[in-house]
Amino acid sequence: MAKQDTQPARGTRDFLPSEARRRAHVIALVREVFERHGFEPLETPAIERLGALLGKYGEEGDQLLFKVLLRGQPLVDGIRQAAEKLSLPGGIVAGRSGETAPGAEPLLADLGLRYDLTVPLARVYAAHRSKLPGVFKRYQIQPVWRADTPGKGRFREFLQCDVDVVGSTSPLAETEVLCAATVCMEKLGFREFAIRLNHRALLRAVCEVAGVPPALEGTAIVAIDKLDKVGRDGVAAELRERGVSDPARLLEALAARDLDEVSRVVAGHAAGAAAVANLREVVGFLGATPVGAHVRFDASLARGLGYYTGAIFEIQVPDLAGALAGGGRYDGLVGSFAGQSVPAVGCSLGLERILTVLEERGALPGEARGLDVVVAAADASDLHAALALATRLRAGGLRADLWPEPLSPGKLRKHADERGIPAAAWLERGARDRASLWIRAGGATRSDAAFDEIVAGARAASGATP
Amino acid sequence: MAKQDTQPARGTRDFLPSEARRRAHVIALVREVFERHGFEPLETPAIERLGALLGKYGEEGDQLLFKVLLRGQPLVDGIRQAAEKLSLPGGIVAGRSGETAPGAEPLLADLGLRYDLTVPLARVYAAHRSKLPGVFKRYQIQPVWRADTPGKGRFREFLQCDVDVVGSTSPLAETEVLCAATVCMEKLGFREFAIRLNHRALLRAVCEVAGVPPALEGTAIVAIDKLDKVGRDGVAAELRERGVSDPARLLEALAARDLDEVSRVVAGHAAGAAAVANLREVVGFLGATPVGAHVRFDASLARGLGYYTGAIFEIQVPDLAGALAGGGRYDGLVGSFAGQSVPAVGCSLGLERILTVLEERGALPGEARGLDVVVAAADASDLHAALALATRLRAGGLRADLWPEPLSPGKLRKHADERGIPAAAWLERGARDRASLWIRAGGATRSDAAFDEIVAGARAASGATP
Repeated sequence: MAKQDTQPARGTRDFLPSEARRRAHVIALVREVFERHGFEPLETPAIERLGALLGKYGEEGDQLLFKVLLRGQPLVDGIRQAAEKLSLPGGIVAGRSGETAPGAEPLLADLGLRYDLTVPLARVYAAHRSKLPGVFKRYQIQPVWRADTPGKGRFREFLQCDVDVVGSTSPLAETEVLCAATVCMEKLGFREFAIRLNHRALLRAVCEVAGVPPALEGTAIVAIDKLDKVGRDGVAAELRERGVSDPARLLEALAARDLDEVSRVVAGHAAGAAAVANLREVVGFLGATPVGAHVRFDASLARGLGYYTGAIFEIQVPDLAGALAGGGRYDGLVGSFAGQSVPAVGCSLGLERILTVLEERGALPGEARGLDVVVAAADASDLHAALALATRLRAGGLRADLWPEPLSPGKLRKHADERGIPAAAWLERGARDRASLWIRAGGATRSDAAFDEIVAGARAASGATP
Repeated sequence: MAKQDTQPARGTRDFLPSEARRRAHVIALVREVFERHGFEPLETPAIERLGALLGKYGEEGDQLLFKVLLRGQPLVDGIRQAAEKLSLPGGIVAGRSGETAPGAEPLLADLGLRYDLTVPLARVYAAHRSKLPGVFKRYQIQPVWRADTPGKGRFREFLQCDVDVVGSTSPLAETEVLCAATVCMEKLGFREFAIRLNHRALLRAVCEVAGVPPALEGTAIVAIDKLDKVGRDGVAAELRERGVSDPARLLEALAARDLDEVSRVVAGHAAGAAAVANLREVVGFLGATPVGAHVRFDASLARGLGYYTGAIFEIQVPDLAGALAGGGRYDGLVGSFAGQSVPAVGCSLGLERILTVLEERGALPGEARGLDVVVAAADASDLHAALALATRLRAGGLRADLWPEPLSPGKLRKHADERGIPAAAWLERGARDRASLWIRAGGATRSDAAFDEIVAGARAASGATP
């Protein structure tokens, strides 16, 4: 047999047991926090009709969508049409990384892989609106796929973890989303973190009063979003490049330190004043919750995405650039499927980043429970007795592995040690209802013990409750 | 805004909260049983290199793979080559459902969606063998994708749920796999179910002694596999069609009722006798476990898949045609990536079928816990107090939703009733630290209660433990 390539596809990962358990443990913890805050689970398919995805994420997003090849006759037809299209002028776009044929792709594909969890939410909400409560609070933790260039911490298949409130303009919606995110951070063991809060309409108002023409506001926001990365001078340069004539004036306006200061900046600007009033309401609610200790207004917070319409926020920890979570109000997007405006606010937890940070700190919350005990026997003829012991341990609520082949006590201990299994039971040749028990912590061995004693000893070693 | 198509892609499903919760509940239960039996979790990516998938599932499987379109320059090149290939003789295969271009597909795609969990297991085992224990017991519960024609209970995206033991030829491996599957069935509330047990080598031996030429054994097994569906006469006709000259003789041999009878059928056939001895060992182990009460030898059990080499088994319930679970030993497949033979045995639980059966019976085990209580207020000015109550309920371990807009008590009760929420708390205008509590079961209302009393009442109504 020839050896084959055993690596997973580029930008994807296999999760072996200990890592799979750690991930499941963190996900279970986050789910429980979301459930406690009244959010309900939603699951959508990994594959969506390509038509439901194209045009939702901008031109770059369309390119980063993984598309699924047509099958049968439609593929044969598609190949013919795509080849014809290529030969037409403009059928191929030449770029730095070679030729691309964006116009040919929809001729060859009918499905795409889920790119985020917001577009599926919008589709589901429109499809099932009559069956859903008037205010729909959902969470969704599922993988998404992006044909990005993989890099450190950047994958082509990765988990997204979103909470959203759909159907309400109340500032309590922002409050609930931020509460759930904050309690997640606390349960995950984060103590010091800041929640930066701003408002997209306020940001636009500040741009306006700083003399940025309305047509340049969008591009200015994209530049402001880079303040953390490239600093004040870098943003000033980029703003000038993008056509903003007086970047210094804008940057000064963005330096307002609190809601009072920014309200003076936008004095007389109706939309700006309304945004400040909305933030005051949100902050008023947040003060009575765990969020209060972490939240601070930041007039320069921009959030890159185009679809935000109201409050925006990001969660940051001191020792890491970039955000661990972020979100905001987006009153236009969910309605795009329903054909009418539907208010919504949501937060996305960067679960992959959070897992990386926790692992680097060696601070994963609690310990994901693995095997409690492993059973082995000296001889094939003792495997019946070993099976009886394993069955007894399992009936006692323990996670008991049974080594299916004869094993020496030394090899058994080595195995338990390497795998981090807290206890190992070994049956010597001719054993019927007795075994010896080795406890990993401390290395104590107890020999010739009855099965009941083995169960009790293994339970004590593992800390499992019956 | 124009209304868009809101349906999920053909053959895929959205899971709204109650269904998502039920599925998560069943999955958690199955996971816990697997963990208790010493199986460890593995997760692999949804997308695999196409080369790792093609040729593993036979010609039909290759056609049913969802393939992912190339991107950029490789796609442009691929379209040109595919068009060229189409124009060559044999470039297109004409079938009943139109033309297909199987040769062109690998020119246009580089990735495929996971088709089962066994090939990824084989790949991971080969990649990480040195890091894994010598006997690797893993479970994996993840979706797979097949471009099949969707039908009742047949989907294009569905969960698979596999347990496998890799690296041991011991009959204890079969035992452990069957134990885990049996305890799952029991925990899921199934009382009456049969585990049919046979052996692929025994089946081949029976074919041989019944005069089926070795070259026809594979095709004969495919026909025998349909015994449940088309009956004895149907199989006889199909066997004749497939070239078996004396189907009656084979069918009679397959009617052996127990291991003693079948051992007489294959008397003198070395491989057949070895298979019987192996099954006796397996049955010997099973007798001491929960499997013992359910297992019975069935000489006609065939299992369609080509890759089985040893014991094979299926779990069936009386009121349903087809199997709820099935598996067997396959000592060739896992090694195909490693370039050497690796013994393995596994069982796949038909989780989607099991969920369907349980729902039809109205017998889902336990009840997936939903929201415990919902809080609302008469007036926007009372939402601060409502938030304080929700925060108190959540701190008390309850899953508390908070309605973010003013709501009348009648609408609140209707909402709680429709959503199956066991309790609802309502704050009247000007309420500060008191509310009324409505209990859904019985419809009792308690008014003007302190928050502590609301927490205690809601906890009692929901059955949640603090």
